Amino acid sequence: MKAIVTEFSTRDGGHYVPGMEHNGVLYVSGQLSINPATGEIPVGGVANETRQALANLELVLNTAGLTRDDVIQCRLYTPDVANWPEINTAYSEFFGTHKPARVVVPSNNLYGGCLVEIEAVADATART
Amino acid sequence: MKAIVTEFSTRDGGHYVPGMEHNGVLYVSGQLSINPATGEIPVGGVANETRQALANLELVLNTAGLTRDDVIQCRLYTPDVANWPEINTAYSEFFGTHKPARVVVPSNNLYGGCLVEIEAVADATART
Amino acid sequence: MKAIVTEFSTRDGGHYVPGMEHNGVLYVSGQLSINPATGEIPVGGVANETRQALANLELVLNTAGLTRDDVIQCRLYTPDVANWPEINTAYSEFFGTHKPARVVVPSNNLYGGCLVEIEAVADATART
Repeated sequence: MKAIVTEFSTRDGGHYVPGMEHNGVLYVSGQLSINPATGEIPVGGVANETRQALANLELVLNTAGLTRDDVIQCRLYTPDVANWPEINTAYSEFFGTHKPARVVVPSNNLYGGCLVEIEAVADATART
Repeated sequence: MKAIVTEFSTRDGGHYVPGMEHNGVLYVSGQLSINPATGEIPVGGVANETRQALANLELVLNTAGLTRDDVIQCRLYTPDVANWPEINTAYSEFFGTHKPARVVVPSNNLYGGCLVEIEAVADATART
Repeated sequence: MKAIVTEFSTRDGGHYVPGMEHNGVLYVSGQLSINPATGEIPVGGVANETRQALANLELVLNTAGLTRDDVIQCRLYTPDVANWPEINTAYSEFFGTHKPARVVVPSNNLYGGCLVEIEAVADATART
């Protein structure tokens, strides 16, 4: 088991690491749509928030030496499934031709009023 | 990493594959209680919807060369935990003597008004 | 695939096992904040409930020959994200210096009025 720690890891005081690797799989913690450098949620709606959460996911992947193409599955949470079409568009632009398995979970209100949270598992054997 | 694609894979325009295999584990995307051939949610209540979501799960398993006995864990989402007894009955009929690990998640309203969504991980080394 | 069964496994009639092991990973079923010996939810608020859910998690880990230090990732569900600071405090006291990856999921109302449910994956190769 190997912890993946980023420069923003402990900013929010939560008891977690951004990623943990075991047996060829990277487990990425839930990434909210908060800019870790500023603590702000991007303005402009759920598409922008999705891009922020995906950027946060990518920071963890890159820190582990992986890329978005190594993502096996994403689980996405949003408090209103009506947000889904916009999330799907930003998400598909991010991943391009790569299509991970996916779960969409309509949740209760997210921390801080975020409209999207994303977690993932990735192929950690892809690194080399 | 190996994508598992079914005949219904891209019907809903979502950016995902029904299943992704890595390191001896099949990750199955969230399966809603929608008949993929008709796009309809079965009538008759949550037990029927559970059977549909499980049939959708089984299609992905079978496409990957696996069966319901290879399921390691299921995660089930329903917008009202009061649906749980009926879901559990249909679920136990489906799995019979096999009892995967399980998580029940009371969610917000699911896509299209579905009453149940099911995701799973399965043992992909079971295939031979 | 190997089922992990505890003395309380079938108490609630649910069709599941508390844990399932595969390929060096233990998948722990969702643990509610219910005392399995009494069927009661602890009084005193969400911190006490978090300690109960974590005790239930630890019983599964120990039954599998593992400890809390082997946990790779936890996924925590609570019906109100305002509970989060108290959950985080009880959670950090439980894990001490070990920080698994983590996902926080604001859910709908949990079974029986519980304020917290916890699931986990753990490193099953750590045993020995």
